[in-house]
Amino acid sequence: MEDALYGMIGKIKAQPGKRAELIALLSGGAADMPGCIAYLIAEDLGDADGIWITEVWKSKQFHADSLKLPAVRDAIARGRPLIAGFETHVETRPVNGAAR
Amino acid sequence: MEDALYGMIGKIKAQPGKRAELIALLSGGAADMPGCIAYLIAEDLGDADGIWITEVWKSKQFHADSLKLPAVRDAIARGRPLIAGFETHVETRPVNGAAR
Repeated sequence: MEDALYGMIGKIKAQPGKRAELIALLSGGAADMPGCIAYLIAEDLGDADGIWITEVWKSKQFHADSLKLPAVRDAIARGRPLIAGFETHVETRPVNGAAR
Repeated sequence: MEDALYGMIGKIKAQPGKRAELIALLSGGAADMPGCIAYLIAEDLGDADGIWITEVWKSKQFHADSLKLPAVRDAIARGRPLIAGFETHVETRPVNGAAR
């Protein structure tokens, strides 16, 4: 049986004035992750420090494995001081994986 | 100047037991909308009636125009009785539009 798609939707609150820097880090760290179908980053128009991330993975395991990738670990380590907190964090089962 | 990308992230709460039916409607109504770069639908793993939608549009105008499309108007009309409410609704400026 094919694994179900796995997804996450979350809001990260950057430290004041650090949103652009954090987004640059997230974009770089997320490049070329195996099993990652979508990794959409968006600025919250109503919150100058808010970042929304929508992730779609081929399976939950691919996401778990991504956290061991050196590029991802590095991005997490460098991003941590730029993060004020996490507001929304939802696990999902994506119904359609691909953007058009 | 090129228009900025426009996005939305929202959570829809389906009437009890109506999530699958509502997702089918949303998927059909969202097919082939001009200017729509991504329309990701996901079930909330922690809420049996919760649906998350992440949208990326070429501009805010394309989204506004989509609401006039017959297929979209039809999906909205048929979906309304299946919807219990809207929980999260955020406007965004997507930073990266495409899934990989």
